Order: sequence, then C-alpha cells, then structure tokens
Amino acid sequence: MAPDFPITDRTRLKRRPQRGAYDRETVYAILDAGVICHVGYVVDGQPLVTPTAYWRWEDRIYWHGSAASRMLAAVDGAPVCVTVSHLDGLVLARSAFHHSINYRSVMLFGRAELIEDADHKRTALNAFIDRLFPGRSQACRESSDKELAAISLIGLIIEEASAKVRSTGVVDDEEDYALPVWAGVIGTRMTIGATAADTRLQVEPAPPAHAAVYAENSALDAVLTNCAIAAGRLGK
Amino acid sequence: MAPDFPITDRTRLKRRPQRGAYDRETVYAILDAGVICHVGYVVDGQPLVTPTAYWRWEDRIYWHGSAASRMLAAVDGAPVCVTVSHLDGLVLARSAFHHSINYRSVMLFGRAELIEDADHKRTALNAFIDRLFPGRSQACRESSDKELAAISLIGLIIEEASAKVRSTGVVDDEEDYALPVWAGVIGTRMTIGATAADTRLQVEPAPPAHAAVYAENSALDAVLTNCAIAAGRLGK
Repeated sequence: MAPDFPITDRTRLKRRPQRGAYDRETVYAILDAGVICHVGYVVDGQPLVTPTAYWRWEDRIYWHGSAASRMLAAVDGAPVCVTVSHLDGLVLARSAFHHSINYRSVMLFGRAELIEDADHKRTALNAFIDRLFPGRSQACRESSDKELAAISLIGLIIEEASAKVRSTGVVDDEEDYALPVWAGVIGTRMTIGATAADTRLQVEPAPPAHAAVYAENSALDAVLTNCAIAAGRLGK
Repeated sequence: MAPDFPITDRTRLKRRPQRGAYDRETVYAILDAGVICHVGYVVDGQPLVTPTAYWRWEDRIYWHGSAASRMLAAVDGAPVCVTVSHLDGLVLARSAFHHSINYRSVMLFGRAELIEDADHKRTALNAFIDRLFPGRSQACRESSDKELAAISLIGLIIEEASAKVRSTGVVDDEEDYALPVWAGVIGTRMTIGATAADTRLQVEPAPPAHAAVYAENSALDAVLTNCAIAAGRLGK
C-alpha cells in the first residue's frame, strides 16, 4: 500500500523491507488491536521503556497515568518512541537458523505532550473507556474534577510510523526440505478468559453488552477491532 | 520477598510501591513466561524501542538478530532498558477513574554486549531454541559456521530489575459500591492456537513432543513455565 507516513531514517526497514508498511490502514489496524504499548524515552541519557495502556484517536496516540508519575513528567515535550506488538505464532523450521516468530508490530515517533485542557482530558479519557467497552463512559460514574486533576494525560501526534509483519509459514533452505525434521507453525493469540463479576454488585451479575463482547475464548484483537469498526474508528 | 537486585532510582517504584518486587524469583518467573521483549536504546538522543524475541540464561538476557541489524550495532556497549509485559485482564470499576488492567511486567537494566565467541554464540542460540522447544536444537539441522556468523548475539547481565504486578479485582471508592453499575474483571491470556504442519514434511504430520507441549487452547505462559521447570531453569 502507498505510504501515508514519511519513510525516514528511523522508520525505514533496512532489514527485510518486504515486512514493512507505512500506510495508515496497516499501522492503525495493529494499534487498534492492542491494549498495552511500550513507551521509550530518555532520562539523563538512560533509555527507559514503560509498558502502559494506550488508545488512538485519529492521528494521535494517548496514554495516561498519575499526575505524580515520573514517566509522564519525563516525556512531556520530549521525543518518544511508542511500540506495539502482537505475537501471532512460533515458527519451527528444519534448520535452527530459520526458526522465527510471526508477529505484527508498529513503531511510531512523535513528540509527547501533556494535555492540560480539562475538556480535552475528559473527552479523551472517555474515548479510552469507550474504545474498550463501547458506551461504558456513560454507564459508570464519571470522573470528578478532582479525579481528573489527579490524572496526567499524554498525547502524541503520530509523525512517523512503520509497521512490521511476519505472517507466513516455514521458510527453509531448499536443500533442507529433504530432511526428516518436523516443521510447522504454532499459532498464538491473546485470548479472552473468564469474566469474574465483582462480589459486591448491586445489579445482576451478567455483564452488560459492552463487557459481554469479551466472550470467553474469543481473540482480544478481534474484539477490539470489532469495537473500532462499530464505532466507525477503523483506519480513521 | 527480599530484594535480590539493588533498588535504585531507576527501578524503585515510587507510585504504588505495593505492586513492586525486586527478587529473582518474581522477576525471572515473569521473564521466563514471555517470548517478546521491548528493548529501549538511544541513537543520537532519539529513544528507540524494538520488539524482539529474547531468552534468559541465569542472570543474563539474550536477544539476537542479523549481523547487519542497526539495532544490534546501536546497543553494543550501551546502556539499555529491556521490558517484558503480560496483559492479564481488564478491570471494570464502577467509576471511570478506577478502571484498570491486570498485568505482570519487568523492567531491567544493564549494559548490552555483542557476544562474538563462536562457542558462546552456539550454546546460547541452542538454549534459545531449547527454551521454547525442549531438545529441538538436537533434532533440527544445526547452524553452519556461516549462518552463525550472520547472526549477531547480544547478551546483557541483569544489573537492576524490578517487577510490577497488578492481579487483584475491582477496587472502588467505598461510596461507589452502592451504585447500580456492573463491575468485574475480564481475564486475558496469551493462548496457543492451532498448529499447522508444513506442507512439505518428510515425516509424519503430528508434531514431536517438543512442539506438542503447545496444546491448542493452553496458556503460553504456562507452557513456557513448565518448560523452564522441566529444564531446572526456573528461578536460577
């Protein structure tokens, strides 16, 4: 697909360029299928990588934390790298050398910025909840002004992004196909487990529709993608 | 548990210290349950976060790549941060503010070093395959010297490490428990999917024991942990 993001020195895949993509559709589909990103930033020359929940709204990625968070203070105004990855399989080749993994990943760059406007914060944080549980922001108790002030919100306009995907089967050297060695791909997927209702519920224990979409044994990325499609957010 | 790793400015959890741990048993159990880590490093002041497969051997973490990899060249001799995280659940509270996720994560620090000794490389790369598929390094074609030379191996002695875990249920403000809002935890887990044998096999399609441990619908972290226990590696 034609690139939407500029291909720069830091996003160009020099190794295995056939695994790379720079278009919004590919990049955003990978982002919208995940929950945890890894934020890379630098403090006094030391790289730090913090895992945190994130969400996307148009061309921006958000994450949040306590107003007292060191990470959020360190990234405000700073160049950061945000990486999201999904493990899709283990690839067993006939040779040690060609063992591999299947995955989808995105690496994106931009300048992180602390968002202090209360309306922007409230809207973005509601979008976070509704991205996971469509409509839930209206169903639960909304944040008080004091709670909102205790949350730091970081937004990052995606300036550069690259996706990298391996989704093929076993690739062996031609002469190795004759070897009596088993080869194949073992699929892996982030999957929904059991739902446990809280023990102090004042309502019936069956989860409401916005939580029931997480049906046991379904794939998390598929549920999240369906939520994004239903909300008209996919690829936008 | 008593800390094994020094608690320093970069590993001390200032926020929610009750979620932190600094002992080998906790840290290594989280590392040994995962496949992909996120390596943070700095190139010309720009943080970069690369997802890559990793493995642990005693107090060292390894990862590898092409000898032509920019990442591996950039991290040799440099301070890096390696982060591993597992998403364990989505926590729906009665208030927007107390929504959360359950997770296990490790952040570790050390100096990355390119390992050039051929014996060390071969032993470590075999350990990588055997960590995932016990005994497979002896069952597949071993790497030629040329293949070995095409792989760069990075090792990092874990100097500092902290684990952070949230594994509890819903925590709401006391007055919110009276609200007619559903609350609960939706479990998530990296799960084994279908195994697809390669179409050009010279052997029977049923996977050998070292691959059959990845039984469909089992949890990836449990399989990996069992492999580590069987090999006597856990906590060591």
